[in-house]
Amino acid sequence: MTKRIAIIGAGPSGLAQLRAFQSAKDAGADIPEIVCFEKQSNWGGLWNYTWRTGVDQYGEPVHGSMYRYLWSNGPKEGLEFADYSFEEHFGKQIASYPPRAVLFDYIEGRVKKAGVRDLIRFETVVRRVDFEDGKFTVTVKNLPADEEYSEEFDHVICAPGHFSTPNVPEFKGFESFKGRVLHAHDFRDALEFKDQDILIVGTSYSAEDIGSQCWKYGAKSITVSHRTAPMGHDWPDNWAEVPLLTHVDGNTAHFKDGTSRHVDAVLLCTGYQHHFPFMSEYLRLKTANRLATADLYKGVVWIDNPALFYLGMQDQWFTFNMFDAQAWWVRDVIMDRITLPDRATMEADVTDRVAREDAGEDDYDAIWYQGDYIKELIAETDYPSFDVEGACQAFKAWKGHKKAGIMTFRDNGYKSVITGTMAPKHHTPWKDALDDSLEVYLQN
Amino acid sequence: MTKRIAIIGAGPSGLAQLRAFQSAKDAGADIPEIVCFEKQSNWGGLWNYTWRTGVDQYGEPVHGSMYRYLWSNGPKEGLEFADYSFEEHFGKQIASYPPRAVLFDYIEGRVKKAGVRDLIRFETVVRRVDFEDGKFTVTVKNLPADEEYSEEFDHVICAPGHFSTPNVPEFKGFESFKGRVLHAHDFRDALEFKDQDILIVGTSYSAEDIGSQCWKYGAKSITVSHRTAPMGHDWPDNWAEVPLLTHVDGNTAHFKDGTSRHVDAVLLCTGYQHHFPFMSEYLRLKTANRLATADLYKGVVWIDNPALFYLGMQDQWFTFNMFDAQAWWVRDVIMDRITLPDRATMEADVTDRVAREDAGEDDYDAIWYQGDYIKELIAETDYPSFDVEGACQAFKAWKGHKKAGIMTFRDNGYKSVITGTMAPKHHTPWKDALDDSLEVYLQN
Repeated sequence: MTKRIAIIGAGPSGLAQLRAFQSAKDAGADIPEIVCFEKQSNWGGLWNYTWRTGVDQYGEPVHGSMYRYLWSNGPKEGLEFADYSFEEHFGKQIASYPPRAVLFDYIEGRVKKAGVRDLIRFETVVRRVDFEDGKFTVTVKNLPADEEYSEEFDHVICAPGHFSTPNVPEFKGFESFKGRVLHAHDFRDALEFKDQDILIVGTSYSAEDIGSQCWKYGAKSITVSHRTAPMGHDWPDNWAEVPLLTHVDGNTAHFKDGTSRHVDAVLLCTGYQHHFPFMSEYLRLKTANRLATADLYKGVVWIDNPALFYLGMQDQWFTFNMFDAQAWWVRDVIMDRITLPDRATMEADVTDRVAREDAGEDDYDAIWYQGDYIKELIAETDYPSFDVEGACQAFKAWKGHKKAGIMTFRDNGYKSVITGTMAPKHHTPWKDALDDSLEVYLQN
Repeated sequence: MTKRIAIIGAGPSGLAQLRAFQSAKDAGADIPEIVCFEKQSNWGGLWNYTWRTGVDQYGEPVHGSMYRYLWSNGPKEGLEFADYSFEEHFGKQIASYPPRAVLFDYIEGRVKKAGVRDLIRFETVVRRVDFEDGKFTVTVKNLPADEEYSEEFDHVICAPGHFSTPNVPEFKGFESFKGRVLHAHDFRDALEFKDQDILIVGTSYSAEDIGSQCWKYGAKSITVSHRTAPMGHDWPDNWAEVPLLTHVDGNTAHFKDGTSRHVDAVLLCTGYQHHFPFMSEYLRLKTANRLATADLYKGVVWIDNPALFYLGMQDQWFTFNMFDAQAWWVRDVIMDRITLPDRATMEADVTDRVAREDAGEDDYDAIWYQGDYIKELIAETDYPSFDVEGACQAFKAWKGHKKAGIMTFRDNGYKSVITGTMAPKHHTPWKDALDDSLEVYLQN
């Protein structure tokens, strides 16, 4: 009997898994029967933009956290597929910080070429994953048909992403704040905040990037409240960093240092949860957002039941290429090319990864740690080897460019670690480029 | 063995069920063991206001559709509990259109008096209801503990409401609209729309009331787009009714008659879905929002498995008192005081209800139809008989007052059908009453 494999999600991780199996098939191997379940009507995960917030037309929580006018906040040279370069896709090298539509086009290009779309059941949400007698039962709902059904699988690869379920803290006074309170997950268009005084709570990527967008599209002022430390960039004049929000009162926000400010809206850029309500309790990953996740051997094998895999669950410096490294490696476990060790060895692997992450001192250590993880995985499969060190260096340069100018770092370019080509300088500085369409971006 | 009963939801319907059982216990009966599962941290369902939108702190879709400054849009004389009058609760008669906080206090008063809070497991979401070998297995998640568990029950009473999962249609251009698009479910504070040109799509209660709120709290203009017919009230000068939206382009909304308008935000007041993803397919009610629901004998018994009940699933003129009538009746089925007929008889009952609803010609027929339904149920239980006809007359008068003045109808009062007392005139016209607190409302 051919094994049956369920992949949950057709975002970057799930698509990497589809491409991994298809590349083995192209090389002549017999591959298992694969079904990929995707809640949305198209592939691409977060890169599949939707105007919707809250719940979708079927009453399901909206997956997308993507907002309009988003440009990659890291260099594309850090995420390029080793088996499908930007030059192969666009027919030329392109600038280093592509807007969403450009990256979506690139992701889609590879899987279109691979011909894997027929393996995906779109608008099909996973309701429940159970395991009994050596088989997984996956219960799903065909959303347009409003019908639930179950199928059995030998393996489940859970790849729904972990930037879809917001972490939403409460601050005193929110229940009577005279304006809008929203999480970054529900942010869609910076123009909704034009001419407004906005308060951002948080200091990670969402805070930095959504604040920058709102600045670019005409917010009156941006105030960013931090719990631990300010981001410390050289911000524009109408941007302030303040201590933690203590409470709001009418339209006044109060901070830990006793200061206060008028704000029209509060944007909670307070991160996301690993949230998989459809996984039965005994199969459900519970982990912090870190480089060394809990309970996953090699970062992908669920130790309590090694027939189950999770992809892309790490905190991320590397993204698409890390998902590839994981997907190729999981494929090879499923296809019996890699043998899993005993449970004790797997547990020791997790402990060791945690200890090594904890020994790191700064972001640079974290970048190289994750680079080493990718090297470790790809050394054991036929995923094309690439210059991971070069990608780490691109991240290092990126961090320097951000320090030099938070509103100008996207005007820099880097060298592809896949093709060796230098990215061209973009035709327009990011802060002046209000049209984020693919057509305009590619006019280099 | 004592029967075990699961109630899903501690909103007005679930609380009615708890009160129904407790009243039997007070009268000396042996009642079953009852567990009520409530997702939120407090009771009251929609009347338990939250500032949250989208998903909550546990990643669960936010139940609440309640917005700030909401006043009842129908007279309280149409919803008064027959066993707990407004006068009993407040120690005096109060005006007829209470704000949310006042109604919440009233709902809470009865169940506090009944002492049923210990039967409710708060912050516990139902994940799954299955049925096998004569028992229901209810799988729930304790949200703060992040732990799932299952228990068995003889009966399930599904009472989660049906105004929590929005029906959200898409219109062309939404993906590039330069402003906010939201459903009424995510509307919280009219001040978010002060000085804005807002477009409302829809003509039912949400459209009428949210539009009126935004007008009251300073929206620049209100445009309401209808599919079939305008609401036709005598609206203020900055309020327009227009044909169906065809598309948006930038900040311009275009309508079916070829006209267009500038709009800053689009509010979809397009209704709600009966959405019970936690019910297994073979137990899941699928019905339109109508007076005669599909597949429910007497509007409450799930025909395919009469050990399962649904409360409050009807389109509603009557609310709290109808839930009471249903809850008392369901209690008596569970306690073997009422015997269910065979399946054919139950099916004929549904067919007959549908036919009688379809024979109605207008809203007045619908009101009396639902009044008759309540009379039918309470005749078969010990729920206190009350003047249902009087309540129907209050609804009729209310409709007349809305026609006479859509921004003034809440300044009218009606006679209680429970105590016979006339409601006092409120101290401030609704349009000038910006403070909706309980304290201020009760200053009559």
